[in-house]
Amino acid sequence: MTIHLSAQPLSRENFAAFGDVLEAQGASHYPINNGTTERYHRLAAVEAYPDRTDPAPPETIINIFVAKPTPHPVTLTLMERHPLGSQAFMPLNSSHWLVVVAPIGPAPAANDLRAFIATAQQGVQYRAGVWHHPLLALDAQSHFMVIDRDGPGHNLDESPLTERVIVDLEN
Amino acid sequence: MTIHLSAQPLSRENFAAFGDVLEAQGASHYPINNGTTERYHRLAAVEAYPDRTDPAPPETIINIFVAKPTPHPVTLTLMERHPLGSQAFMPLNSSHWLVVVAPIGPAPAANDLRAFIATAQQGVQYRAGVWHHPLLALDAQSHFMVIDRDGPGHNLDESPLTERVIVDLEN
Repeated sequence: MTIHLSAQPLSRENFAAFGDVLEAQGASHYPINNGTTERYHRLAAVEAYPDRTDPAPPETIINIFVAKPTPHPVTLTLMERHPLGSQAFMPLNSSHWLVVVAPIGPAPAANDLRAFIATAQQGVQYRAGVWHHPLLALDAQSHFMVIDRDGPGHNLDESPLTERVIVDLEN
Repeated sequence: MTIHLSAQPLSRENFAAFGDVLEAQGASHYPINNGTTERYHRLAAVEAYPDRTDPAPPETIINIFVAKPTPHPVTLTLMERHPLGSQAFMPLNSSHWLVVVAPIGPAPAANDLRAFIATAQQGVQYRAGVWHHPLLALDAQSHFMVIDRDGPGHNLDESPLTERVIVDLEN
């Protein structure tokens, strides 16, 4: 059976249960550097927890991911989560992209998924433990800045979807 | 007296004493997500230290800075440092920008400064304690993703320059 999932435009409000939206628009800000710069402060706070069985302090690291465009129709097969840390993605190109998430909890079924279209000015940070699809670029090869946890312990769970899920990008 | 400082193109090699260059080009990478994405892993590790007098654990936060273009000629008046944490800047627009730093140590004099032109694909992370000029956009209002420390304690020192320093962007 094929499930169709309708993608909505991403906003702080509709993403609040899953994490933070990283964008200047609509965020509070204040001048710094003698008025030459506006600081949109604390759009997200990073989570990086130690593992119970190996309590060496984890690090927060900065990476770049380069994603190939996803073939159409966008077909989802697998969700993943990082129980010990948040993971943030900020687009570095002028392309919109696709965010698919499911609530913290047991392995998600197709009906638990939510899909959001992010603009080129919108990043997201998934809260620790939030199920999310691997990175989905849409129209072109795309660069993303990624901020996540590095350190010992178990910080990746994967969960295949048992149904075929197709994302409808226009509804 | 006016000092002229010549800006060089930024590279990992010439910036190594001050921190990390955040760019995919020239960095090692490996495939993830079933080959749909390349991960340029650990371009930088974030530093966030507790303050000695208030040892509450600090946080790492994600911000956006929006910088006005700097008037020409680029004239430097002040350097700053963050003794308790690194600070990373990644451009989100297609504009080059200017990085000015001085080594960890006493308040810098004009002769201690180094200036680098960063491309639109290059971010930097200043190591904790590295003197740097406040953000310098060049040609247009520019957005930057900024990753830095939030928490109690003394994490900002400013040091005015006693000589007038002009940055020569082409040499």
